[in-house]
Amino acid sequence: MGRNIYKSDLREFKFLIEDQFYQTKALFEHSLYSEHSAENLSDLLQKAKKFACEVLGPGYQEADEQGCQLVDGKVQLPASFPEMWSRFKEEWGDLASTDGEQHSELPPFIMQMLLEMFMGANPSFMTYGGFCLPSSTLVEKYGSEIQKFLFKEKLARSEWTSCLCLTEPQAGSDVSLVDTKASRQEDGTYLLTGEKYLISAGMHDLTENTLYFVMGRGEKSGSGTYGLSCFIVPKYWVEEDGSLGEFNQVECLSLADKMGFKGCANTHLSFGKNGPCRAYLLGDRENVGLLQFLTLMNQARISTGVYALGMASSAYYNALAYASKRLQGKRFHESFSATASRVNIVEHVDVQRMLLEMKSKVEGCRALIAKLTLSESFLKTFEGQADKKAEATHHQGLVNLLTPVVKAYVSDQAWRVCELAIQTCGGQGYLKELGIEQYARDVKVLAIWEGTNYIQSQDLIRDKLGLGNSSKLFQIYKNEIEAFIAKAADYPTFKGEFKGLQESFEHLEIVLKAVHVWVRTKEMFKIPAYSTRILHMMGDITLAWLLLEAACSASNRLSQGEADTDFFESKILSAKFFIRNELPRTRMVMEIIQDPDSFCSVDSSVWNSLLNEVESL
Amino acid sequence: MGRNIYKSDLREFKFLIEDQFYQTKALFEHSLYSEHSAENLSDLLQKAKKFACEVLGPGYQEADEQGCQLVDGKVQLPASFPEMWSRFKEEWGDLASTDGEQHSELPPFIMQMLLEMFMGANPSFMTYGGFCLPSSTLVEKYGSEIQKFLFKEKLARSEWTSCLCLTEPQAGSDVSLVDTKASRQEDGTYLLTGEKYLISAGMHDLTENTLYFVMGRGEKSGSGTYGLSCFIVPKYWVEEDGSLGEFNQVECLSLADKMGFKGCANTHLSFGKNGPCRAYLLGDRENVGLLQFLTLMNQARISTGVYALGMASSAYYNALAYASKRLQGKRFHESFSATASRVNIVEHVDVQRMLLEMKSKVEGCRALIAKLTLSESFLKTFEGQADKKAEATHHQGLVNLLTPVVKAYVSDQAWRVCELAIQTCGGQGYLKELGIEQYARDVKVLAIWEGTNYIQSQDLIRDKLGLGNSSKLFQIYKNEIEAFIAKAADYPTFKGEFKGLQESFEHLEIVLKAVHVWVRTKEMFKIPAYSTRILHMMGDITLAWLLLEAACSASNRLSQGEADTDFFESKILSAKFFIRNELPRTRMVMEIIQDPDSFCSVDSSVWNSLLNEVESL
Repeated sequence: MGRNIYKSDLREFKFLIEDQFYQTKALFEHSLYSEHSAENLSDLLQKAKKFACEVLGPGYQEADEQGCQLVDGKVQLPASFPEMWSRFKEEWGDLASTDGEQHSELPPFIMQMLLEMFMGANPSFMTYGGFCLPSSTLVEKYGSEIQKFLFKEKLARSEWTSCLCLTEPQAGSDVSLVDTKASRQEDGTYLLTGEKYLISAGMHDLTENTLYFVMGRGEKSGSGTYGLSCFIVPKYWVEEDGSLGEFNQVECLSLADKMGFKGCANTHLSFGKNGPCRAYLLGDRENVGLLQFLTLMNQARISTGVYALGMASSAYYNALAYASKRLQGKRFHESFSATASRVNIVEHVDVQRMLLEMKSKVEGCRALIAKLTLSESFLKTFEGQADKKAEATHHQGLVNLLTPVVKAYVSDQAWRVCELAIQTCGGQGYLKELGIEQYARDVKVLAIWEGTNYIQSQDLIRDKLGLGNSSKLFQIYKNEIEAFIAKAADYPTFKGEFKGLQESFEHLEIVLKAVHVWVRTKEMFKIPAYSTRILHMMGDITLAWLLLEAACSASNRLSQGEADTDFFESKILSAKFFIRNELPRTRMVMEIIQDPDSFCSVDSSVWNSLLNEVESL
Repeated sequence: MGRNIYKSDLREFKFLIEDQFYQTKALFEHSLYSEHSAENLSDLLQKAKKFACEVLGPGYQEADEQGCQLVDGKVQLPASFPEMWSRFKEEWGDLASTDGEQHSELPPFIMQMLLEMFMGANPSFMTYGGFCLPSSTLVEKYGSEIQKFLFKEKLARSEWTSCLCLTEPQAGSDVSLVDTKASRQEDGTYLLTGEKYLISAGMHDLTENTLYFVMGRGEKSGSGTYGLSCFIVPKYWVEEDGSLGEFNQVECLSLADKMGFKGCANTHLSFGKNGPCRAYLLGDRENVGLLQFLTLMNQARISTGVYALGMASSAYYNALAYASKRLQGKRFHESFSATASRVNIVEHVDVQRMLLEMKSKVEGCRALIAKLTLSESFLKTFEGQADKKAEATHHQGLVNLLTPVVKAYVSDQAWRVCELAIQTCGGQGYLKELGIEQYARDVKVLAIWEGTNYIQSQDLIRDKLGLGNSSKLFQIYKNEIEAFIAKAADYPTFKGEFKGLQESFEHLEIVLKAVHVWVRTKEMFKIPAYSTRILHMMGDITLAWLLLEAACSASNRLSQGEADTDFFESKILSAKFFIRNELPRTRMVMEIIQDPDSFCSVDSSVWNSLLNEVESL
């Protein structure tokens, strides 16, 4: 085990809970979460930080150096993972379990904070148990009684792990091409044959069993996405009484060697290649696999944002720590003065620019994820309550709308934050020893997996924003942001920032109208030229909103003569920096979209002709 | 040896030589370059591409896997390097040699094209011989007669290599802190003691000798940069008759493990640690080391841009090749159509957006470097000609002004191009096998070494643009760009693009005026908050200008009914895409700089207070 480089600031979480999202107080009055209090949350977060820094973090760089090896069909994980797993399972494995009367669930809003620290401290390690909780929820929601009995608690307590199997070599982002085949047996189980590709954490011996949630196609099912079904394939068969049967012919054919995330075994799996591979059909219903998977996929998308945030945040703090101690050069305006003293690079204004960009993006992305998970937390308390239907619609709408933004915007910004963190540390930033370069390598995959960021932008523009046609989800978002902007009069010192936010939101509305015009004028083909930028625009606006909200909360604290003024003042700085230096992109994007000549399309014959010469010698 | 992944298009070079920079014709009429003709250049470029793809390229990924090892004080390079070196030396080692009557020099404009392919195909390898040519020029310019006799031709023919030693552990970017000590001996040579850090290609056995150009301080020299002198330290001492003497006590203490560029040994060197280390003083003049080094450093900065271009260009072509063959999904506007066919991802408009951003940036950066090296090429022909003084001033001004832009803008854009190339290839982009991820890892250091990109922006704003006070260099740039814009009437189809360029140039002028106001109002401390963005602004404008110039040349070709219309039309697309989608940043940056609230500065006490909590457990 090595040196821990993971860094976090618990005040960030405390601020979200007690200040910016003070509504959480109402949350803890609900019976679902009533066991938790401000004090035990504080203890829990402290304990989680300690675990992240002392147990997970020291294995971060080692996992990168050792990677995973396939030896005689077995996957060897980094040496520290088995011990790490047993400690993880013991201390944190049953957070999701609701078995037993006394146990009070942890709201997603808080869970996200723990996961940010765990995923930031050792992202590869966290992939192994990453789907335990969401797939336990999946079984709870869709599983048959026997499936719930067999699998739910095993997953909820992390006794077994779960693995998501969607991608196949010929079907990367295009799920409709999946052709893993399933044939129904007389006893109601299925026999599976097929291969899955680039499956994260697909094979290991950390737990006695692994449940593969495999997207496949029944014999009578049609092609396309509507013929897909979700199968539960245990690595070792599970009899109906819960006892373990024989090895179920799930094999790892090869491991992919990749840029980062090296402790996470990226597997090429075969099902039923050398013998029968049996499977349960989730909920005994064929052809609804994609629908069932949706919850899981949405959860995976949110988790992707949390991974990105965890690493970007630690990269930022590492860069800050380095900049605070590295003596180098004189201040720019004193550079010709013989008597001027050398300063730590944190005093160089260009370094501050980089630190402030990192700080504001990290804090803004944290608030964005908190916003989403707070809605998730409320949603859980509304279950089965008819009088909460309007509120439930509101919160579900926010969750649906923000999920692709969290996935794509946070992962793209994390890459940028890592770039800046490396740059801040100069030559040291490029060296393995400091560890920041690993964050950049680990973070890059997040823009690709669980649906590429372009797919997220399609989901956002087409399915969530109704191709600009003032969708219900957009109305929910608009109501919230306008309610916030209405508070501007209470904060006269932030007048310019509120104005900037309002203008940017208007830019978004103009852009969405332009998108909708294209639908009517049969120019829909233009939309994907801008969809990534529109998603980023929405991310920028949401960050500006939430950072300004944080600044308002912080200014309230400061006016109460609160201690820790540096922390609260730095919140105001984050908002100011972001709104004045980053948010102006929205006007630029709007103007680009309004310029008809910004659309360029190239025939594939032209690309081919360019390639011909490239590939000749 | 492995598979070559390096890709390039010779038409790009042909286009620069014959179309966009048709002035090169005049160049080849000068006696200095008269041996070269269009035909032999074409053969030369063809031969260089073959060498890049067949000799250098196959060792690219292997060099990354094997890296360098320090074993018993010796540095082991990747296994393929020694054989590669002997072929490189044989075929390309003497391009710079002007020994003998018959040999005609290759202009930097063409040399840059060869280097782009070599550096793109195997950047680590190219670091070993990278300083041969510039340090041969250095010796020619500043060396004493005996130094010229001993070293010049050895370097020019790549028989010995050269290594630049500036950085020390305590003095990263701050050269004034260098404290390697030199004491003068009775025979006029010096004894050196000191350590140098993060020295690229600092130790190897590819050649029988290596000359270290070491920045050090004589015993009577003062502190600061004006007390620095340049010493030539041969790894094996060189007697005055040219024979090799004994080992000269240059040792490698350790190698740095880093994100990329792994085939380049990053060494921590000691001089005179275990015995006397002798040195020649360059030109027998103390205290002028930094001045002497300037040429070398400027050359290294230009080379940094060429490395960045070479890798970014190949990353783009690799992404294009992948996108052209990867069948995946339906077109966005047909996504709900059951009968629509699947297409190669090159047909997805979001993929085209990424390809066009890569294409326009790569082509624009290539034209930027060509612009600079064309001026260098002309400068050489003016040497000693009194009647060419005005022209020489013009071209020297352009070279000086564009050098920091080439170093910083091209390296920053290369990182962005690599990000897009990975993203275009999805999961495959993240895998080592495809090789694109290595380009991203290799490229990142280019924004750091040879003066961080922030240092480049200081150089640009303070020393080249005179802090906004309408410097002579800026006037030269302005005259050129205005002369180009004056041609707008000849190209009515590009009316909007010319207008965009003109407006962006006005934004730059407004920004520079604002910078100069800060100097007068004693707000110079604000400048570094924006200097990186101003450098990028100037890069964006220069790219827009040169891409539009290329589009004009291409449109002339098309109107002549030239074959290969796809290629020429794609040049127009690059200009159009960049000017409509990237250039609008200049307005945004101008508005940010005009907003007094965009400047944020944070006391180091605040940063420290933020850190305290982060580092507590």
